[in-house]
Amino acid sequence: MDPFLRAAIEEAERSLSEGGIPIGSVLVHSGTIAGRGHNRRVQKGSAILHGEMDAIENAGRRSAAFYRECTLYTTLSPCAMCSGAIILYGIPRVVIGENQSFMGEEQWLSDHGVEIEIIQDPACIKLMREFVENQPSLWSEDIGV
Amino acid sequence: MDPFLRAAIEEAERSLSEGGIPIGSVLVHSGTIAGRGHNRRVQKGSAILHGEMDAIENAGRRSAAFYRECTLYTTLSPCAMCSGAIILYGIPRVVIGENQSFMGEEQWLSDHGVEIEIIQDPACIKLMREFVENQPSLWSEDIGV
Repeated sequence: MDPFLRAAIEEAERSLSEGGIPIGSVLVHSGTIAGRGHNRRVQKGSAILHGEMDAIENAGRRSAAFYRECTLYTTLSPCAMCSGAIILYGIPRVVIGENQSFMGEEQWLSDHGVEIEIIQDPACIKLMREFVENQPSLWSEDIGV
Repeated sequence: MDPFLRAAIEEAERSLSEGGIPIGSVLVHSGTIAGRGHNRRVQKGSAILHGEMDAIENAGRRSAAFYRECTLYTTLSPCAMCSGAIILYGIPRVVIGENQSFMGEEQWLSDHGVEIEIIQDPACIKLMREFVENQPSLWSEDIGV
């Protein structure tokens, strides 16, 4: 498996072990992880720290030139907020673990020239399937439905 | 002036007095401010705490039903990330202080049924005009250009 997708899955598993939502992400620049993160809704009482947002936040303040050399890995298709962050910063490539449990704003990303790769990784799918079954109200809260 | 736009401007002024980017926001539910915030790029070294994101974060974890009764006030047209948060949570109405200094994803919001009101408030315009003139590189960083 791609080591960066592996790292995103490890973040998702860490979140689950903390009692949180199992979605993880890493921001990769020039072959190195610049920021890693996971959903912190439960852990920090946060409405904005989805996995992708946490990874971007943990990469710190960066220039536009930096983001334009990045790939964002995420275990789940990015929602409107996370897709908006990708577009704001001009991140050119996104690797998505799966989009069967939730379909984010992939079309909007593509329309903005973002290259998308969908893996449909069994581990990502299993993490989300079990979580949604076990905690449907928490999942609804996280995606605003 | 609308007291909620006034509160958003106070947040922007507070950010400026802290050495930060002068953009503020309040999330209003049933006539009461549920969360208020301002850009924290400088103050917290944050890549994701735009004014609108900070206001949403400070409102805490909320249900979809709550957000659907909210109006978000912001001193400046919301970028892709903040617009994405508005769409994620189904916030139905956004009052924008001005969009002359920066035009965000207003069309995308409208396409999703979000009601938008543009004030073109002189105080909001002045805050941003002076900031962009004085700190162009910080402003570029904030909008990823």
